[in-house]
Amino acid sequence: MKKVYAIIALSAAALAFSQKPLDRVEPAFWWKGMKNPELQILVYGKDIAKGEVELSDGVQIKDIQKVDNPNYVFVTVNTNEINVPKFKINIKNGKKNIGSYTYELKQRDPNSANRESFTSKDVMYLIMPDRFANGDEKNDSKSDLTEKANRTLPNGRHGGDLRGIINNLDYIQNLGATSVWLTPVNEDNEKVYSYHGYAQTDLYKIDGRYGTNEEYKELSQKLNKRNMKLVMDYVTNHWGISHWLIKDLPTKDWIHQFPDEKNGFKRSNYKTTTQFDTNASEIDKQVALDGWFDTTMPDINQKNPLVLKYLTQNAIWWIEYAELGGLRVDTYPYNDKEAMAKWAKAITDEYPKFNIVGEAWLYSSAHIAAWQKDSKVGEAANYNSNLPSVMDFTLYSDLPKALKEKDGWDSGMSKLYNVFTSDFLYPNINNILVFFENHDTERWNEIFNNDPKAYKLGLTLISTVRGIPQIYYGSEVGMRGDKNKGGDADIRRDFPGGWKSDPQNALNPSNQTPEQKEFYQFTQKLLNWRKEKEVIHTGKTKNFVPQNNVFVYFRYNDNETVMVVLNNSEKEEILDLKHFSEVIKTHKKGKEVISGKDILLGNNLIIPAKTSMVIELN
Amino acid sequence: MKKVYAIIALSAAALAFSQKPLDRVEPAFWWKGMKNPELQILVYGKDIAKGEVELSDGVQIKDIQKVDNPNYVFVTVNTNEINVPKFKINIKNGKKNIGSYTYELKQRDPNSANRESFTSKDVMYLIMPDRFANGDEKNDSKSDLTEKANRTLPNGRHGGDLRGIINNLDYIQNLGATSVWLTPVNEDNEKVYSYHGYAQTDLYKIDGRYGTNEEYKELSQKLNKRNMKLVMDYVTNHWGISHWLIKDLPTKDWIHQFPDEKNGFKRSNYKTTTQFDTNASEIDKQVALDGWFDTTMPDINQKNPLVLKYLTQNAIWWIEYAELGGLRVDTYPYNDKEAMAKWAKAITDEYPKFNIVGEAWLYSSAHIAAWQKDSKVGEAANYNSNLPSVMDFTLYSDLPKALKEKDGWDSGMSKLYNVFTSDFLYPNINNILVFFENHDTERWNEIFNNDPKAYKLGLTLISTVRGIPQIYYGSEVGMRGDKNKGGDADIRRDFPGGWKSDPQNALNPSNQTPEQKEFYQFTQKLLNWRKEKEVIHTGKTKNFVPQNNVFVYFRYNDNETVMVVLNNSEKEEILDLKHFSEVIKTHKKGKEVISGKDILLGNNLIIPAKTSMVIELN
Repeated sequence: MKKVYAIIALSAAALAFSQKPLDRVEPAFWWKGMKNPELQILVYGKDIAKGEVELSDGVQIKDIQKVDNPNYVFVTVNTNEINVPKFKINIKNGKKNIGSYTYELKQRDPNSANRESFTSKDVMYLIMPDRFANGDEKNDSKSDLTEKANRTLPNGRHGGDLRGIINNLDYIQNLGATSVWLTPVNEDNEKVYSYHGYAQTDLYKIDGRYGTNEEYKELSQKLNKRNMKLVMDYVTNHWGISHWLIKDLPTKDWIHQFPDEKNGFKRSNYKTTTQFDTNASEIDKQVALDGWFDTTMPDINQKNPLVLKYLTQNAIWWIEYAELGGLRVDTYPYNDKEAMAKWAKAITDEYPKFNIVGEAWLYSSAHIAAWQKDSKVGEAANYNSNLPSVMDFTLYSDLPKALKEKDGWDSGMSKLYNVFTSDFLYPNINNILVFFENHDTERWNEIFNNDPKAYKLGLTLISTVRGIPQIYYGSEVGMRGDKNKGGDADIRRDFPGGWKSDPQNALNPSNQTPEQKEFYQFTQKLLNWRKEKEVIHTGKTKNFVPQNNVFVYFRYNDNETVMVVLNNSEKEEILDLKHFSEVIKTHKKGKEVISGKDILLGNNLIIPAKTSMVIELN
Repeated sequence: MKKVYAIIALSAAALAFSQKPLDRVEPAFWWKGMKNPELQILVYGKDIAKGEVELSDGVQIKDIQKVDNPNYVFVTVNTNEINVPKFKINIKNGKKNIGSYTYELKQRDPNSANRESFTSKDVMYLIMPDRFANGDEKNDSKSDLTEKANRTLPNGRHGGDLRGIINNLDYIQNLGATSVWLTPVNEDNEKVYSYHGYAQTDLYKIDGRYGTNEEYKELSQKLNKRNMKLVMDYVTNHWGISHWLIKDLPTKDWIHQFPDEKNGFKRSNYKTTTQFDTNASEIDKQVALDGWFDTTMPDINQKNPLVLKYLTQNAIWWIEYAELGGLRVDTYPYNDKEAMAKWAKAITDEYPKFNIVGEAWLYSSAHIAAWQKDSKVGEAANYNSNLPSVMDFTLYSDLPKALKEKDGWDSGMSKLYNVFTSDFLYPNINNILVFFENHDTERWNEIFNNDPKAYKLGLTLISTVRGIPQIYYGSEVGMRGDKNKGGDADIRRDFPGGWKSDPQNALNPSNQTPEQKEFYQFTQKLLNWRKEKEVIHTGKTKNFVPQNNVFVYFRYNDNETVMVVLNNSEKEEILDLKHFSEVIKTHKKGKEVISGKDILLGNNLIIPAKTSMVIELN
């Protein structure tokens, strides 16, 4: 990589003649007043590296990097030193201007840096935009995008979009969710399976079939007005093979390549536990991280400083532009961990309250906790990720087993209890995502054959334990889906009513079937109650070892105490309340949140089979 | 508790008249030259606290503690200041001598403090003495001990004893074991189930049905002569309800009592995970630790300083007296953890190389590792146990599952591999006990229906991975036992040939059946090979992520490299050796340890179905 320093001052006016637009400039614009004033601009155009870069209006170039591919120049400026709102980037070859671009530095929202982000006060609603609601039929297919809408194909594009989500914000808000995580909505122009969005082909552009950058911002602003937050699904590990940068790589090492392998392709072994194995072979560690997630998903090399800068600025650009309230990061441990620690730090340095939750899909609390910022376990592995939040895959994994299996010393409700006995490993236990399903897993209602009792037990748990509950679109009306049989498509079915032609609209609660209503109303009641419950958001917890397949825990603070009872037994159970006297203290009664019934806290509490109770003590 | 200081100097001769022996003095004797010169002597006799304690020969009393029960006096002396080999303890009531005892301070073996202990160089052979071999039929029943021998009762006493073990040291040594862990052999005078020894009734006396203190020492010395070690099974958590100290408690709080409960008994909830649950209720934490392990096993209160001192001195007494090479501690997390940290520190302060392995029966590596000295995980829970070694219950739990279940992303051999990806949590991974069964678990050969292939795979693993392999008597000749059906008795059957009347003697290898031979010869070959293999004892490890149900790892140091291949597939597998080139390097061939066959390390290695190979590269 050659470095060429050129400081050339010209007025924008002097170059007004003979200007040819540059093919691409990224980020397309930026902001004044960022904590980190340095901005690296990727400039792209045929053979531009053979020319010279000139900036207008006295704007100084701090650094220019040219790379193997002559179509790229990386120009670094210091935004603190730029006092014009716009300046020109010109590429000159001798006297000839071979490319030009007007670069804008916008003003930041004064509250931008200090924005709030999702926390344990929130409930996160996870949507696959292609499968939720089709608000704009005109964008179902786009002439410039390969895959066209075809709702008859389980793995095809179905037409769901941002307008569909915007149109249903009342539904989402009334349900009790306070933040929305969309699976990726940037352009994914792969030929097939493009609906899932994880093979992105343009990191600065919303996929036209979902809408526009402006509509994405509109969604975020409308959520913010409701005191809700938009969470972007960010993918650092891989891009789509049709990404323009992949098709014309700046240098070979922007992605991991395997020229010795058949078709130059090597699949990841998907064993990110190698990250913790101090004895792991070099080849396995490398294949886990550098192997491709799939044939259409080249593995990005975050170790390359230009790549890392690109990923960092892109994330910050979206946060700033679309007023985001959080990031969810895909396949976190598949990335270079040192690079990702820098990435997370750069973002949280810029937005100190910003929350980022990483998908570290591992089945041991120690392995997961090690990915959370300031983890002692990570320290044991000489690592600090700077990542604020992780996902509780241990709870996800053990919760359905616990509800299904026979109660025993370490099975049934005791298995569930044991999950929480590793909480001490997490440096910030309130900032972990708790969930019983997502877009990659079997649906809860499939596992439990649409049993509302099981749904209520599961939802009660994730809505009242420490952490940030995350629910997945459609389960609140009883949607099911069998990944084992129908593959991913089956767990990503269309929300009934999201399409005009749908025979029934569950997005309108008054239209819901009695079965749908039972799921919906319970969800709505519980989540809306949770909204204002500081005792759930940040209260302490007191756990009681399960007895007779009943798990009881309390959330409490100085003002409030909530008793949660989960009876997983096949029969009614009678609790001796004396056992809980250290928390119940002198409380004589309470109110059950869902039924609204008064509960006398005398000697015993009777709880029906397979039932949960959430009791506010008073 | 009252403290009475009395410093009275008398000559032994002056009290020679009218002496009545004291009922008990513990420890019965002690040694000069311990690092900690302080010795607390428990003196026991009817109403002796009403008298005055006098020591002869100018020996000074540093402290006297009297307690609620007048039958006890605890006398502290400084052994550094005592210059006579023997002195008298006299209890006087006015002029009357109401009890007398001649206390001896022996000389230590000069190598005592610096003794070696079991390490990863060793293989530990676990024996239930009542069930191994009956070397002395005269002691099968004893007039002063309640339960008499009856070999027809599965849970009765069968007559196995120390002499039986001493008689079979050749067998044990030839097998390849280098240390012997006996389940408790102190007196257990309960009416039933006394054979297991965990309800001890005298902590200073070998149960007469096993032999004498002298025979125990003889066993240890004979092992030491063979460069082998005796490991005592130490029980700090509970004693037998017929223990003399329990029957006449010094103070109520020597054990945990539950006067409000029915019969004053409360069973432990056996949930020691509460120790790590920062949100555990007080009652659950208390019941886990203070509840009784069983009706005949009162729970000892280690928080009481007199109790802790008693347990500490008793352990040191046995180490010093019987020349022990290690301790195994029963039900470690059921004890008061701060007290146990002091206990372990006192012992390892006295014997810096001494190894103590605690039974922390938990199913998460973090939970287990937290109990090992200097654990970062323990630190996260603000705790340092000072306990040098723990047991790898995670491996124990996952190994049979891994071998039985279908291979998958996190199942089969990958499950096995994942166990090792938590090794970084242990501060001293070489000092953990690895095993696939013990006296409390289903027998391996039962799980695998006596399949020698499964036995060989399991044994190869535990004999070649990091840590200290522990095997369980009898499995080396194919013994099986079904705890689920036959209870504990079934996994503790008599070793065939340990009794003269046995129809067949498997302790004599030439008498073994072909089936027994297959198990025995493999074990003998592998363990004897292991004895001299520093590369296995302390070498580094290189793990390769399992492929096609084959797990490959290497142990290596500057001088040697050993390749271990475990093929759990139902078919022959062909390994591409290029994959392992980072360790194989330029090695061209090797020798398989069991078969003795030369192995060419060309392009491929063929390994038959359900087979292990241990290859020394050369």
